[in-house]
Amino acid sequence: MAVAVSPLAPKSVPAMPPIPGVRLATAAAGIKYANRTDVLLALFAPGTAVAGVFTKSKCPSAPVEWCRANLKRGKARALVVNSGNANAFTGKTGRLACQFTAKIAASAIGCQPADIYLASTGVIGEPLNAKAFDGVMEGMVVAAHEAPWLDAAKAIMTTDTFPKISTATAKIGKSTVTINGMAKGAGMIAPDMATMLSFIFTDAPIGARALQTLLSQGVTDTFNAVTIDGDTSTSDTLLAFASGAALDAPRIVKASDPRLKKFRAAFNSVLADLAEQVARDGEGARKLVEIKVEGAVSKSSARRIAMSIANSPLVKTAIAGEDANWGRVVMAVGKAGEPADRDRLSIWFNGIRVAHKGARDPAYDEDVVSQAMKSPTIALKVALGLGRGADRVLTCDLTKEYIAINGDYRS
Amino acid sequence: MAVAVSPLAPKSVPAMPPIPGVRLATAAAGIKYANRTDVLLALFAPGTAVAGVFTKSKCPSAPVEWCRANLKRGKARALVVNSGNANAFTGKTGRLACQFTAKIAASAIGCQPADIYLASTGVIGEPLNAKAFDGVMEGMVVAAHEAPWLDAAKAIMTTDTFPKISTATAKIGKSTVTINGMAKGAGMIAPDMATMLSFIFTDAPIGARALQTLLSQGVTDTFNAVTIDGDTSTSDTLLAFASGAALDAPRIVKASDPRLKKFRAAFNSVLADLAEQVARDGEGARKLVEIKVEGAVSKSSARRIAMSIANSPLVKTAIAGEDANWGRVVMAVGKAGEPADRDRLSIWFNGIRVAHKGARDPAYDEDVVSQAMKSPTIALKVALGLGRGADRVLTCDLTKEYIAINGDYRS
Repeated sequence: MAVAVSPLAPKSVPAMPPIPGVRLATAAAGIKYANRTDVLLALFAPGTAVAGVFTKSKCPSAPVEWCRANLKRGKARALVVNSGNANAFTGKTGRLACQFTAKIAASAIGCQPADIYLASTGVIGEPLNAKAFDGVMEGMVVAAHEAPWLDAAKAIMTTDTFPKISTATAKIGKSTVTINGMAKGAGMIAPDMATMLSFIFTDAPIGARALQTLLSQGVTDTFNAVTIDGDTSTSDTLLAFASGAALDAPRIVKASDPRLKKFRAAFNSVLADLAEQVARDGEGARKLVEIKVEGAVSKSSARRIAMSIANSPLVKTAIAGEDANWGRVVMAVGKAGEPADRDRLSIWFNGIRVAHKGARDPAYDEDVVSQAMKSPTIALKVALGLGRGADRVLTCDLTKEYIAINGDYRS
Repeated sequence: MAVAVSPLAPKSVPAMPPIPGVRLATAAAGIKYANRTDVLLALFAPGTAVAGVFTKSKCPSAPVEWCRANLKRGKARALVVNSGNANAFTGKTGRLACQFTAKIAASAIGCQPADIYLASTGVIGEPLNAKAFDGVMEGMVVAAHEAPWLDAAKAIMTTDTFPKISTATAKIGKSTVTINGMAKGAGMIAPDMATMLSFIFTDAPIGARALQTLLSQGVTDTFNAVTIDGDTSTSDTLLAFASGAALDAPRIVKASDPRLKKFRAAFNSVLADLAEQVARDGEGARKLVEIKVEGAVSKSSARRIAMSIANSPLVKTAIAGEDANWGRVVMAVGKAGEPADRDRLSIWFNGIRVAHKGARDPAYDEDVVSQAMKSPTIALKVALGLGRGADRVLTCDLTKEYIAINGDYRS
């Protein structure tokens, strides 16, 4: 199946600086795809801290269980990611595949298997042939270097149409540290949590507990505020690694440390950028949709209403059809179950108010709105008029291409 | 937009007997469509009892509010239904349209406006021109007779591809009573409650409170166990009318009356038949999907898991692609948030076990399953292995036609 790059893809790819203490390598292990890389190895300097956020699925994949079990140690020496097979719902075979992969990686590196983090993405329910890693692991350990960020992001793609990378720098004390991240989408993106796989790397010397707090707080308005189809993967994994190799930076052990202020902003900007790229590459997406809800009784109420709108097939198909169908938005507000007063609702599409206080806005010009709906980005704002709660989520439209991608995925 | 009749439509249309005390008429008022009927008037004998179940939307349509307000009186003399415009999110204009419609109907019949029940379906957010009813109401009152059930069901269609009617008889004491029903779907069908519009009529002499209990209990495993796209209309309305005109039948005032046993079964069979017809006419549907969940910790837990599967775009697109993608079923089980143990799950498609105890069933033959998936009806069974809770819901697949219908609906 040939899929063109999403029309919503960023126009340029950022130049990714090296991260001291982090080296990368990719390989083609032939897990599922031919003629492409499908394994990523990230090597970390001794002392690297790790934090993670995972799917809330009651049926998580074997790698998610592996990472969760090891996370309390707070230390990582390597990350092994494969595409093509998610190693999910694979029973004992799946657990053995994780153990085997960690063992060969640990042996090649010279560390404990528990220092190896694992993530897999692709088909679920099929056994993962971890033996395939055996032929490529030693070579990757030797070849790993600081530069190939774009290659790394490409190796973890499944139905993604473009690699997703982001970078930022921040000062901690007088030292400038770097944050690099990558992600892969592109279906089954729903909170909580909202990406299939994303990995963040920094040379900042931040302890594992502080890193975990930063990450858990950072996802709320980034990855957890993105939804493609309301489905939640068994494999959703977001891991952050802090090598601590930055020169002269003070070691941070508490997330509340005021010296983290700029770092936190930069870290969150990388999460937000990657989350938006995931929405821009939703399966079959032709429009990026930002949904803002204001005037709700609370932020969490605004979030639930925004998600109800974002996950409504009828709203999403209307946007695909370039139809400012605010009646369906009212429907989605109504079904959220949150406090709402039909006769106080106002709705805007790309800045044009189409509904006001419970009825069609008399000033709204259908032709002007139709023109606005042709834009590849749609800003949908709903004002409830009840309180001060506001929130924002990102999604995309629902197109025939989504059906094509997901109706033919396995075949 | 020309839409072919759903391939899942029933092969035959039932012959609908008359219901003493109920007369029907239809008209073309030109609400939205050209060259078709769009108004239904049902006239009831004095003393007719009424019961209703409505959308749980926080932003209900004006007719829903009208019916709710009058329902406590328990009496009905007429029902006026229009297609083409839902009179939802129309503010004060919408309320005035309801008052006006009820007034002209009451005047033509000679009753109170509060005895008139109203339902509207179609576009939401556009003012309903109730004046259009003025030209047809008196004619309908004169023309109403006992026969035109199929015409009535056709007048209330929107994106439905076939009219939905059902009939049954039952004995109450020594008297045989009749139950006729009609429904219209076909998108925005989700609990609670699960149809846009459905109307049930009987000549049984059942009091309003007993009728309400029957109806409220009856929807649980019928209309509320059907979902098309997870969206919930602002207009969902199910009304039941009992004229009491059956000869010699004992008057029933309590739903617990043992003489209602056969009636209840027949009444529920009409609800179930109509609910299944709604699923068979889900927008763009090519496959009717029955989802059975067993071994859950409770019936309500089984229901939530079944609904999570039924509303998963990834499961629905896989079925559209005739792919027995049980990995996505596991995903949908996992995201339901209900107790589930990945390693006890078993999954069947059309009787073929494809997954067993946490892994692919080694006995499963891909070719046999692929053949089975070509069937227009798909039975998807999930056994959780935890308890004795079981439930069943109906849905349909998610096809490109759904996108076409809903991306072009208003234009």
